[in-house]
Amino acid sequence: MYKFSDRIKNMDGTATREILKLTSKPDIISFAGGMPGTCCLPNDIIREIASDILGNKSAVTTLQYGQSEGVKEFLETMRGYMGELGLKGVELNNLQALSGGQQGLDLMCKAFINKGDTILVENPTYLAFLQIANTYEANVVGVDADDNGLILSDLEQKLNKYKPKLLYTVPTFSNPTGKTYTAENRKAIVELCDSVGTVIIEDDPYGRLRYDGKDVPLLKSFDKTGSVVYITSFSKTIAPSLRVAVACGAPEVIRKVTIGKQNTDVHNPALTQLIVSEYFARGYYYKKLEENKAIFKERKDAMLFALDKYMSKEVVYTRPNGGLFIWMTLPEYIDAKAMLPEAIEKKVAYIQGCEFYADGSGKNTMRLNFSNSDTDRIDTGIKIISELVNKKIKEHKA
Amino acid sequence: MYKFSDRIKNMDGTATREILKLTSKPDIISFAGGMPGTCCLPNDIIREIASDILGNKSAVTTLQYGQSEGVKEFLETMRGYMGELGLKGVELNNLQALSGGQQGLDLMCKAFINKGDTILVENPTYLAFLQIANTYEANVVGVDADDNGLILSDLEQKLNKYKPKLLYTVPTFSNPTGKTYTAENRKAIVELCDSVGTVIIEDDPYGRLRYDGKDVPLLKSFDKTGSVVYITSFSKTIAPSLRVAVACGAPEVIRKVTIGKQNTDVHNPALTQLIVSEYFARGYYYKKLEENKAIFKERKDAMLFALDKYMSKEVVYTRPNGGLFIWMTLPEYIDAKAMLPEAIEKKVAYIQGCEFYADGSGKNTMRLNFSNSDTDRIDTGIKIISELVNKKIKEHKA
Repeated sequence: MYKFSDRIKNMDGTATREILKLTSKPDIISFAGGMPGTCCLPNDIIREIASDILGNKSAVTTLQYGQSEGVKEFLETMRGYMGELGLKGVELNNLQALSGGQQGLDLMCKAFINKGDTILVENPTYLAFLQIANTYEANVVGVDADDNGLILSDLEQKLNKYKPKLLYTVPTFSNPTGKTYTAENRKAIVELCDSVGTVIIEDDPYGRLRYDGKDVPLLKSFDKTGSVVYITSFSKTIAPSLRVAVACGAPEVIRKVTIGKQNTDVHNPALTQLIVSEYFARGYYYKKLEENKAIFKERKDAMLFALDKYMSKEVVYTRPNGGLFIWMTLPEYIDAKAMLPEAIEKKVAYIQGCEFYADGSGKNTMRLNFSNSDTDRIDTGIKIISELVNKKIKEHKA
Repeated sequence: MYKFSDRIKNMDGTATREILKLTSKPDIISFAGGMPGTCCLPNDIIREIASDILGNKSAVTTLQYGQSEGVKEFLETMRGYMGELGLKGVELNNLQALSGGQQGLDLMCKAFINKGDTILVENPTYLAFLQIANTYEANVVGVDADDNGLILSDLEQKLNKYKPKLLYTVPTFSNPTGKTYTAENRKAIVELCDSVGTVIIEDDPYGRLRYDGKDVPLLKSFDKTGSVVYITSFSKTIAPSLRVAVACGAPEVIRKVTIGKQNTDVHNPALTQLIVSEYFARGYYYKKLEENKAIFKERKDAMLFALDKYMSKEVVYTRPNGGLFIWMTLPEYIDAKAMLPEAIEKKVAYIQGCEFYADGSGKNTMRLNFSNSDTDRIDTGIKIISELVNKKIKEHKA
């Protein structure tokens, strides 16, 4: 009856959305979402800060309409933060406050993508980006990847073939694989994209969550021409429901992102932006990050320990140095999507890996989140998934 | 150099955006924005409520990822509120939390509009809606209006000619004219739109700000087929920077709005939604509204008094019963846009009326906001604008 737009008429509940609903049931051990541990969320600190902000600042700052770019104090904090991340010479006109990192992905598509334009993504990549690209009716093409990052010969061939408007990447502790691109790979990606005028989205929600090894320079740090837009979020490092993130890019690009923001929701709430900048000013950011990382690392190690203990040796899984996810590859004859209802029946959830592939492949893969379950539940849940998988392997061999 | 999308490549700073910047200069008497009076913004109440929410509720509710539809407690409050506004039988699946009313307009276009689809609007209408429609590359057609609302013969002719996907209306204390459609007009609009399957957006940010006269039933209250999506915001009745609003419509339509929301920014912050629902629960909403309305009415009356005192009798202006705006029509030979720099030179700002016309007409009109200036500044500012206008009339006659 309703004449919906082409972009949305065939879209029903997104996988992400259904996942968020699954994980809200307390009797299910959920490795499905991408949530930081609820135990790590700083209610008390944010209460203290919110109370001070509303007590000390005038209503014109906290409650009246503000500018679309973001609250000045927040943007100043972000300028300093970008410096700490190794980006030099960042000015206020390089920055745009966002309502979560995902809004940055949407606004970048809004600024660049006409129907039919090509976007390159890593194969596999963040499933919500694939959904966003669908709402812009883009042609999404996957680029093959290995442990070092994107496979440069494949990238080069696809850049030349498609002249894509955008390359979307999660180069540090990637969603879903947990992989980190090497510095050499990053540098080469920027150079290849520059040669054909492709703009790069560096989506970095997980970069601060490193548990082992050394930081790799941001992909944006190799950008000499203004071709990289760096997006980082506080959803995983402070709290998801603040919905605060920031984009950093060339002023010309940021200007278009700002215009998109103006049109879609005018501006972020001031309160949540000010909470983040005060969280930095009071020294909570790095301090709390260290505490949370210790918890997440313990959970990651517990998940790997359980996998090593229970899972068939025919199954391959990543051993990430950070982020929130372990990526698992089952024997080719096991369909992780078909197996999911069996797992949920046994009160464990994960996400089938095919959701992360532009072409729907990867049927024998799954993504496991370790940050939002305690170590006991991790052991129980991994045991259940392992038993399911091991039984299928046994049946196949029989 | 950058290959921006068609929708945005020719878009520079929007009028709204520039207005927000103008009005942030304290030495300018601004009648330009659509802001509630800063003096009416409840910093202290919100501080009390935010502190209680963060102190009493668990982090899984306040800070963790939540559902795209909105926080359950907020939606329950909205269900009750819709009943108070005269909408019967509203269920949770009729509701979607929004980051400001404007996001509802954007998500409705996202759900319905393909490039080239027609949207009908009142001539003149909310300028930001015209900008949003541009980002969806819609064909926007203005419908003529009089003091009773839309001119039904013109509406009928354009519905039949264009079979528009959407009709966008601000039927109560309209932006920019301050006009309210009669109940008969509303009923007829719904019936005419139903006959061709056009969905109606009833944008109602101002409906609660009635200073004189009696409420008119919501346009949505005449909806028997699910063709009206009602959007109301707390930007003008609690605080703009909370960015909290709600859409109420048929479940099928709301589902598509939710999917759009999921893709663009996942969900609103929980904190701001909970602040609004607690603001209702503690009885502040209607109480504070009465206090604010007394102030806004005084300012409206002061502006009308000053216009009556200073302005040439050849100028026509509305005497609205509510909302935030007076709409002024100058003699045809005066161009309000051309005059604006002269006004700003003299430290007074307004918005040229042509911004509110889909076809760029209305060059001799302007919108005056009275809610965010005290009565002294209103007198001074209107005197300055009147002197400018009166001088032009005198020069024209000379």
